[in-house]
Amino acid sequence: MSQAYGYAALSSDQPLTAFAFERREPGPDDVRIEILYCGVCHSDLHTARNEWQNTLYPSVPGHEIVGRVTAVGGNVKDFKVGDLAGVGCIVDSCRSCASCKEGEEQYCENGFTGTYNGPLFGGENTYGGYSDQIVVDAKYVLQIRHDEAQLAAVAPLLCAGITTYSPLAHWKVGPGSKVGVVGLGGLGHMAVKIAKAMGAHVVLFTTSPNKRDDALRLGADEVVVSKDEAQMAAQGSTLDFIVNTVAAPHNLDPFLNALKRDGTMALVGAPDQPHPSPGVFNLILKRRSIAGSLIGGIRETQEMLDFCARHGIVSDIETIRMDAINDAYERMLKGDVKYRFVIDMATLKA
Amino acid sequence: MSQAYGYAALSSDQPLTAFAFERREPGPDDVRIEILYCGVCHSDLHTARNEWQNTLYPSVPGHEIVGRVTAVGGNVKDFKVGDLAGVGCIVDSCRSCASCKEGEEQYCENGFTGTYNGPLFGGENTYGGYSDQIVVDAKYVLQIRHDEAQLAAVAPLLCAGITTYSPLAHWKVGPGSKVGVVGLGGLGHMAVKIAKAMGAHVVLFTTSPNKRDDALRLGADEVVVSKDEAQMAAQGSTLDFIVNTVAAPHNLDPFLNALKRDGTMALVGAPDQPHPSPGVFNLILKRRSIAGSLIGGIRETQEMLDFCARHGIVSDIETIRMDAINDAYERMLKGDVKYRFVIDMATLKA
Repeated sequence: MSQAYGYAALSSDQPLTAFAFERREPGPDDVRIEILYCGVCHSDLHTARNEWQNTLYPSVPGHEIVGRVTAVGGNVKDFKVGDLAGVGCIVDSCRSCASCKEGEEQYCENGFTGTYNGPLFGGENTYGGYSDQIVVDAKYVLQIRHDEAQLAAVAPLLCAGITTYSPLAHWKVGPGSKVGVVGLGGLGHMAVKIAKAMGAHVVLFTTSPNKRDDALRLGADEVVVSKDEAQMAAQGSTLDFIVNTVAAPHNLDPFLNALKRDGTMALVGAPDQPHPSPGVFNLILKRRSIAGSLIGGIRETQEMLDFCARHGIVSDIETIRMDAINDAYERMLKGDVKYRFVIDMATLKA
Repeated sequence: MSQAYGYAALSSDQPLTAFAFERREPGPDDVRIEILYCGVCHSDLHTARNEWQNTLYPSVPGHEIVGRVTAVGGNVKDFKVGDLAGVGCIVDSCRSCASCKEGEEQYCENGFTGTYNGPLFGGENTYGGYSDQIVVDAKYVLQIRHDEAQLAAVAPLLCAGITTYSPLAHWKVGPGSKVGVVGLGGLGHMAVKIAKAMGAHVVLFTTSPNKRDDALRLGADEVVVSKDEAQMAAQGSTLDFIVNTVAAPHNLDPFLNALKRDGTMALVGAPDQPHPSPGVFNLILKRRSIAGSLIGGIRETQEMLDFCARHGIVSDIETIRMDAINDAYERMLKGDVKYRFVIDMATLKA
C-alpha cells in the first residue's frame, strides 16, 4: 500500500476536508497515475452530500482525472512511465456480461465499479480523483493525445465529454443532421462543441437569453430561448436528434415537438423529482422516441478523446485550488461556472 | 353522386342511428367497394362521442373495411370488378411530403385524410365503413389475398393488425427476439399472433389472470400477470421490444424495467389522461427508449395483409348486426369482446 492524500466528505453535512488514505500497490495489470487535474462534476456534489442515498463515507469524489503515469505493472503494454493518462467514471466491471464483451462497460449487467463510491454491492469503497494519485487496471485507463498544455481542459472530457459524445455517436449524428442541445452547462457546452465537430447543424435551447453569445461562440448555429413559444414552434418537427442535458424537472413536450418523424430525444440528466409526464400523442403522431443514455464505454471514451484531440476540442474551464472545492460547489449550484471547474492538483499540498 | 346507407352518430350524446347520404361517383383513379364487413375499433366510439373534441357530425365511423369491388375508374389497373378489397384508416394524403414519398402516409406532414371524420382542416367530412359502399382512390385500397371464407375476420387487420404489425416490423422483431405485448384486447391479440408468426418469443402482460389460457392459445409463450411484482421482476432486462396496447393511464416503469439494454417500448394507445411520468433512471441505466407508433402506411398495410394471409392470421371476432352497434359499444367499454366486433353489413338493410 502507498500513502495517498486528497479531499473527502466525511459525512453528508460537512464540507470536504483534507484526507489521508492508502492506495494499493500496482498489480501486474495496473497503472499508477500522478493526478495533475481533476474536473468537478455535479455527481461529485450529489455523492458528497448523499443526495442519491447511497454514499459510502469517507467519500473522495472526482471522475474526470488526468495525470502522468508513474508506475506500470508487468503485463501493461499500452502505457509507460511518463505518459499522460486519463481515468473517467469506470475503473472496473465484470468483463463477462454481454455489455462488457461489447465494450459497453457503462451498462455492465453486474454493475461497473465507479471511480469513487464504487462497488455499491459489497466490496471496498473506491476513492476518486480529488487526490494526488490513483491506481487503476490499464484496461480502464485512457490515452491522452491532446497537447500537454491543454491538459487541465481535457479533464472534463472524461465525464461531460463522453456523456454527450456517446448518445450523439450512438444515434449517428453527422453531416446533414440537425441536432438540438438542451441546456448550456458542463454537459451542454460539450454537446454543442462535439455535435458541431461531427458536422451537425446545432440548435442550442436555453432558458437564459443571456447565454446566446456564448452558445454561438461555442459553435451553435441557432440559439432558441425555450420559454419563448414562438421560437419553439418555429423549430417544430425539424430536429433529427436532441441531447437533453437538463436534470431539473421540466416539460419535455416542447422539445419532443421539435423532433422530426423518427427523431429521438436522449436524456442524460436524471431529475430528483419526475419530469411532467410527456404527452403520448407527441410520440405516436411522429413515431418519436424518448431515450436515456449513460456516460460511455472505455473504447468509446478513447474514441471520443481522439476525436476531440483531432478537432481541437477541450472543455471551457475555470481552474481552482483544491481547498476552494466547497466554494466551487456553492457556485455550481448557482450555475456560476463557465463551464466546468477543474482542480489543479498541484495546490493539494501547496 | 350515388345513394349510400349507413349508421351515423348525429351528435355526441345520441346512439348511432340509420343514416342516408351520398357517395361520389368513381373518378378515373377510384374504386367503388360494396362493403361486406366492417370492424369496430375503439376510435369509432371515441369519435362518435366526440371524446377527442374534433368530431364533425353527422359521423359515420368505421375504418376496418372489407368488401367487393363494384366499379373501377379508367386509370385503375390493380383492381377489377368482383375483386375483394380492403380500406383501412387512410383514404388520401398529400402525396408530396417526405413521409408520403417514403410510403409512410400515416405520418403525412400535411395531415392524411381519415376514412371517417377525415379532412379536419377544411374540406368535406368523410364517411366511414358503417355503410353499404365506399369510393376510394385505388392508391389507398388494399388487395385481400385471404380465403374469402375468412373475410369478416380479415377486417380488423386493417387497423388493429397494422397498428401492431408496423412497430413490430419497424423495430425489426424476428426469430430470436423476445417481445412483450402489454394488454390482450383488439390490438394485443393481434400483436401476439403477428409477433409469434414473425418468429419471436412472445410474453403477454395482462392484469387479468383469467386471460392466461386464451393468451397461450393465441400464441403467447409466456403470460405474466403485470400486477404480480415477482412475475414482473423475473422478466427484468430480458425483452428486446415491447408493444404496449393499453390506452388507460398506467405505470410504465415495470415494463421499461423488463427491457434489455437498448430495448424500446412502443406505445400504440394514447391515454386521455397522462400516464404516471416514467422514471428517467430506468431509461438512462440501460439506454432504453419509449416510443410511439401510429397505424402504418399503405405499402406496409399490404405487406401486413400478405404476411397474415401467408401465416393464416386473422382476428378473433364476434360478428354483430348493424343495429347492435350501440350495445356493442357498451360491451366494448366493459372489455366484453373476444377480441373484435365485426359488423355484417348484410344486416344493414335486412
